[in-house]
Amino acid sequence: MDLIEESKRLAAYTAVDQHVKPEHKIIGVGSGSTVPYVVDRIFQQGKEVNKGRVFIPTGFQSRQLIVSAGLSLGDVDEYPAIDITIDGADEVDHQLNCVKGGGACHLREKVLAEAAHTFVLVADYRKNVQYLGTNFLSGVPIEVVPFAYAKVLNNLHHSLGSPKATLRMAVKKAGPVVTDNGNFVIDAPFEREHMIDPQIIMSKIKMLTGVVEVGLFCGMAKAAYFGNEDGTVTIRWDDGRIEQVAATQNEA
Amino acid sequence: MDLIEESKRLAAYTAVDQHVKPEHKIIGVGSGSTVPYVVDRIFQQGKEVNKGRVFIPTGFQSRQLIVSAGLSLGDVDEYPAIDITIDGADEVDHQLNCVKGGGACHLREKVLAEAAHTFVLVADYRKNVQYLGTNFLSGVPIEVVPFAYAKVLNNLHHSLGSPKATLRMAVKKAGPVVTDNGNFVIDAPFEREHMIDPQIIMSKIKMLTGVVEVGLFCGMAKAAYFGNEDGTVTIRWDDGRIEQVAATQNEA
Repeated sequence: MDLIEESKRLAAYTAVDQHVKPEHKIIGVGSGSTVPYVVDRIFQQGKEVNKGRVFIPTGFQSRQLIVSAGLSLGDVDEYPAIDITIDGADEVDHQLNCVKGGGACHLREKVLAEAAHTFVLVADYRKNVQYLGTNFLSGVPIEVVPFAYAKVLNNLHHSLGSPKATLRMAVKKAGPVVTDNGNFVIDAPFEREHMIDPQIIMSKIKMLTGVVEVGLFCGMAKAAYFGNEDGTVTIRWDDGRIEQVAATQNEA
Repeated sequence: MDLIEESKRLAAYTAVDQHVKPEHKIIGVGSGSTVPYVVDRIFQQGKEVNKGRVFIPTGFQSRQLIVSAGLSLGDVDEYPAIDITIDGADEVDHQLNCVKGGGACHLREKVLAEAAHTFVLVADYRKNVQYLGTNFLSGVPIEVVPFAYAKVLNNLHHSLGSPKATLRMAVKKAGPVVTDNGNFVIDAPFEREHMIDPQIIMSKIKMLTGVVEVGLFCGMAKAAYFGNEDGTVTIRWDDGRIEQVAATQNEA
């Protein structure tokens, strides 16, 4: 396993060990490349403890992971109060604001994050930044109603300070990416000044007519776990504390 | 023609006569029961003046009206700068804030209202109220992404002060109404206190994760034309002026 994959595994295992307790019965499972390790580690907690649990996926990928592991699927309509949701992120800043939506699932992810008593992020060290937009350069993912995309692009270019915002084009499909909700995605890069307190630009974008959801999650996470190449895990908490833990405890 | 129909016709004809000038080439056409009279009156301006014009519809109904009248259709993507949009409303308050979305087209309507240099409302006298929620009791129409409707209902019931908000059910179709964008509609009645300055509750609703658009249009209209049963038309302007005009000038 290469070092980045290993750091993802470390982050996921440590987060599950610290946060997913036997008494947690309703568990939200996010999207992205770190999440398979989250499901792995929960599976390792054993049949007995998982028998009474329900797992709520944020999209097709996590749904498949839950089903493959033989865990029980649920929907947020049935279980509106989730004990804990663990999700990946494209980038996380020092205040635990994050960018999500590289995978175009950020609307469902945000619903599961809001519905959760505790929301925890897991990622590799490259996602651990002081300010959003440091390494993840494609910009803030914005889900938009298809017929309004040109109007929203125009607003972003001329009013909100993202002159390079573009419609996300699909690979393996002609034309733009279509989300699980039938919408389009715009990727809007912003200058550093907007990323110091991303809540402000998040609200401005969400208020645009035609915008469904913005891939900025502000003030939602309790903690973020970043796996490092040296085998340690950095934990950032919502109260500003930073911990560095050895990961030997995390071996499967 | 009954008095209510006649008052709609009066409002529409007067608004077109005052606002739709030969130099206006890109014209937005809204939705609702007053709008057919808008298209009628524009048609009466003659083939010569309409030859060089493009008409942008807010939905299926206005599209059909434009096509039936032999006028040229356009899309807001092609023509992002509209000279004037004329639209109906479910209710208009004394500051020209209005409720729209009884017909579930309010997202497209809002895009065309925003894109217009001048946005004008037309309606019969029953829609002319001091505060929204006086006669139109079903509440504020809110377009939501289908999978998040229960979560949004929950937010409206418990956090935003609309305990009677409900999912709009379809007639002539099983289950809920589905909008032209594939979404659901929630109707959320609010107490008077929220309708004194509806911009505030509008922003709170739009910020909810899962909400696509809110059928409250605040500070967008230049003027509103209300046809009265006595054959006059009341015009409210965005600067607070109120005019009462005789409608004999409006005969076809």
